[in-house]
Amino acid sequence: MPGVRAARGLVRAVRGWPRWYSTATEEVPADRPMKIRDKILTLQSMNPQVRAVEYAVRGPIVLRAAELEKELQRGVTKPFHEVIKANIGDAHAMGQQPITFLRQVVALCTYPDLLDNPSFPRDAKSRAVRILQSCGGQSLGSYSASQGVGCIREDVAQYIKDRDGGIPADPDNIYLTTGASDGIASILKILVSGEDKSRTGILIPIPQYPLYSAAISELDAIQVNYYLDEENCWALDVNELRRALYEAKGYCNPKVLCIINPGNPTGQVQSRRCIEEVIHFACEEGLFLLADEVYQDNVYSDSCKFHSFKKVLYEMGPEYFKHVELASFHSTSKGYTGECGYRGGYMEVVNLHPDIGAQLVKMLSVRLCPPVSGQAAMDVVVNPPHPDEESYEQFITEKEAVLSNLAYKAKMTEEIFNEIPGIKCNPLQGAMYAFPRVFIPSKAVQKAKDLGMAPDMFYCLQLLEETGICIVPGSGFGQKEGTHHFRMTILPSVEKLKTLLQKNNLDCKEKHCMVLLMGRSS
Amino acid sequence: MPGVRAARGLVRAVRGWPRWYSTATEEVPADRPMKIRDKILTLQSMNPQVRAVEYAVRGPIVLRAAELEKELQRGVTKPFHEVIKANIGDAHAMGQQPITFLRQVVALCTYPDLLDNPSFPRDAKSRAVRILQSCGGQSLGSYSASQGVGCIREDVAQYIKDRDGGIPADPDNIYLTTGASDGIASILKILVSGEDKSRTGILIPIPQYPLYSAAISELDAIQVNYYLDEENCWALDVNELRRALYEAKGYCNPKVLCIINPGNPTGQVQSRRCIEEVIHFACEEGLFLLADEVYQDNVYSDSCKFHSFKKVLYEMGPEYFKHVELASFHSTSKGYTGECGYRGGYMEVVNLHPDIGAQLVKMLSVRLCPPVSGQAAMDVVVNPPHPDEESYEQFITEKEAVLSNLAYKAKMTEEIFNEIPGIKCNPLQGAMYAFPRVFIPSKAVQKAKDLGMAPDMFYCLQLLEETGICIVPGSGFGQKEGTHHFRMTILPSVEKLKTLLQKNNLDCKEKHCMVLLMGRSS
Repeated sequence: MPGVRAARGLVRAVRGWPRWYSTATEEVPADRPMKIRDKILTLQSMNPQVRAVEYAVRGPIVLRAAELEKELQRGVTKPFHEVIKANIGDAHAMGQQPITFLRQVVALCTYPDLLDNPSFPRDAKSRAVRILQSCGGQSLGSYSASQGVGCIREDVAQYIKDRDGGIPADPDNIYLTTGASDGIASILKILVSGEDKSRTGILIPIPQYPLYSAAISELDAIQVNYYLDEENCWALDVNELRRALYEAKGYCNPKVLCIINPGNPTGQVQSRRCIEEVIHFACEEGLFLLADEVYQDNVYSDSCKFHSFKKVLYEMGPEYFKHVELASFHSTSKGYTGECGYRGGYMEVVNLHPDIGAQLVKMLSVRLCPPVSGQAAMDVVVNPPHPDEESYEQFITEKEAVLSNLAYKAKMTEEIFNEIPGIKCNPLQGAMYAFPRVFIPSKAVQKAKDLGMAPDMFYCLQLLEETGICIVPGSGFGQKEGTHHFRMTILPSVEKLKTLLQKNNLDCKEKHCMVLLMGRSS
Repeated sequence: MPGVRAARGLVRAVRGWPRWYSTATEEVPADRPMKIRDKILTLQSMNPQVRAVEYAVRGPIVLRAAELEKELQRGVTKPFHEVIKANIGDAHAMGQQPITFLRQVVALCTYPDLLDNPSFPRDAKSRAVRILQSCGGQSLGSYSASQGVGCIREDVAQYIKDRDGGIPADPDNIYLTTGASDGIASILKILVSGEDKSRTGILIPIPQYPLYSAAISELDAIQVNYYLDEENCWALDVNELRRALYEAKGYCNPKVLCIINPGNPTGQVQSRRCIEEVIHFACEEGLFLLADEVYQDNVYSDSCKFHSFKKVLYEMGPEYFKHVELASFHSTSKGYTGECGYRGGYMEVVNLHPDIGAQLVKMLSVRLCPPVSGQAAMDVVVNPPHPDEESYEQFITEKEAVLSNLAYKAKMTEEIFNEIPGIKCNPLQGAMYAFPRVFIPSKAVQKAKDLGMAPDMFYCLQLLEETGICIVPGSGFGQKEGTHHFRMTILPSVEKLKTLLQKNNLDCKEKHCMVLLMGRSS
């Protein structure tokens, strides 16, 4: 009986709860052996800002999923045969194939003997030679400049210029990074200062990608939430920004505004008009703008188009583009390449105070440089084969296969979710996630609270134990009080995704809806 | 006339001094245009801990060297034809060739079509297949677990076990990192806590590698200096550790002891007895031990042998190995591979409190994972070809060529330096740097101080302007008050290094010793 199984699973899951799920400082029990009590590094003595970090995307649900995978391997009987990890935007792990040209260029850079190999195309070879000529000793094994390999920064600048209809980009404003996360955390680190009431406030959307809340916690800054409008396709409303800002001024010094466009986890694509309003607001209120644009190639809805903050800023005229400080971020991990493991990324920073560029380079120098193979991968992302090159045809076929497949799954996900009672899903305009609202009966909410758990965490754990589907509760991203959601990637194959979506609908399939079960069992 | 040239160059260098050389907060002049005064991110408003960071290895000297390189390219006449960057341990940039087997394995992982290519050896293929099977979707482009790819952590554990004569190592205690710097900064980050007098004190050697002082500054912890004994080949004296610790207890909570062995920049290799004393001291005083062992393969002196802290800890018996918290670090960047650009590394952490492992994983999860290609490179470092494998012979030839060349240059460097009047150099027992003492006349010291510059910074800048040699002043690593040094890598080729060493000796070559010049010109 699924209900009993689910309940048993839940008890196991709660027992196996990782200690760090609770962020409160625990008292050390007096009966612990001396050798543990005497440790230097303990929950009590550790960095409290690190202790306070929560990171749901790789949190307790994911640890439980790994346990279940091991149980399956040991032959334990489960109501499913496979754990499907829809918790993280990890395209290749879900079966997406690498873009051939990208891997050819990186392989050639890695092992230049292959430059003599006739099976590698000439355009890949010329890319590799150009990158290697810009590396110390013509080797990926040399440190690059702290800001990144020179010719790759030039290619990034050219890419931005082309993307933005000819608006110039300066290679000196480009910083290659260890994925976008590293760039975002670096800029936030340099921005944070002050104590007590002058502590730096950082405005972030809710729901947000938890890198932001984690970085803010680590830096002991103040997280200032502005809420996206779920009723309006998760649009950003400047009035809500203003509310958040003015409330925050009472207890901190808000100086940074973070935007995620296309949205993660919410999948909305901001309109040009909305971006203009945000820039105007940032300019008026003296906020440093951070534009997380890693999903810029992932736009599926015909009615939507990606507009970069940089482009809109320039089109708004010199009173804006000469003043507003803006850092924008991109990555090898998303788009159609999905090269997460390479940890490649860049940031473009405009209107930095002339003193700050050197400070930024100094700070980045301490970590020496971003991984050079990741920089090479980034180079291919910004400089793919041109129509007159021999690899173009294969490249464009591969690229379009990935993007049209994602667009199909985005539509399918929205449709199937909206057929399920108790689930409501906004259109997935971009990015690679669904973030549907799930209506959990109040009794079940109470039951979860009795277990010391967020209700949607309880929901996701149940789903995992019952079906093997690993998704992340909305509470890990933030949501309006009293609402519940989950984030699920649309990266699994169409067949798997379909099964996965329908498994959310236990009500129809087994006349035994999980939500109802949770309501009854209380 | 070299004197005049040097003086002119110096003036240029001082004028072009990067603003961040001065860490003091500058007042913004009142006559600056509004648009600069209104910036959100300025020297005044930025994170003061970041502002306070100094990082000499990529500091002002290196920026000036880059300028000189550009001037040479533009055809400007200089007293040299080439800038030689002996400032950083960047082996491939200095012409060292990659180890073929390592690059073959990484290339195969990057572009698995090559698994069908008969020109790649079978042992490289089997390594690559094994790594890929441990990657999500069998792709380097997937995120790995936050702690690193499973089979690579197993290989690291096996490497440590073999290195340490069979003392066990647990893959669960291994964390793959983005170079050793990332691992060290991560552990320090989790260790730091407290305010005012309870702020975490971190003991570091002086001279040190400036990653330590930079990380301590960023974390707002307290740097506690213990001095290595230059008169005794830079040996570590536990009495000096004790002095430093007891003095520090008056103003902070010292809880971490950092050791660099073999030493950077000082090149000493610690004796087994000394390591025992350090471990005993850490155990007695309740200090968390950090052992930076990235130069473990770089030992040249016949009278020296590398002993890992982990091994000595275990050999000291259960009262030590069951208690002392130890993190030790290794990297792909040094040794005989010199793969700096891959940003590969690992740390092994033993005796962590059971609660802390999960905290550490959570903290690392925020950055998702170390670059997977760097992890693959690390795998080859810890699991090179075995004697019965087909790549063994070539591998061992390449490895020994690199190491014997470094050993030759270590000896040559010591000898040539000690022939130069005004320079005194300890034996380079290990690592890849010389850190000689340079005796600067008091008048020149005064002159440098008048220019607001450390005397050895003045010396290094002069040398750069005169000869094109880029080295790092001892003040960037720390040194006993009143002594002056510089750090120079021994990575350039034997011919280049010989020229470079002799160019330090302007006294002999041109009867115009820089040191004397500096004395006269005051």
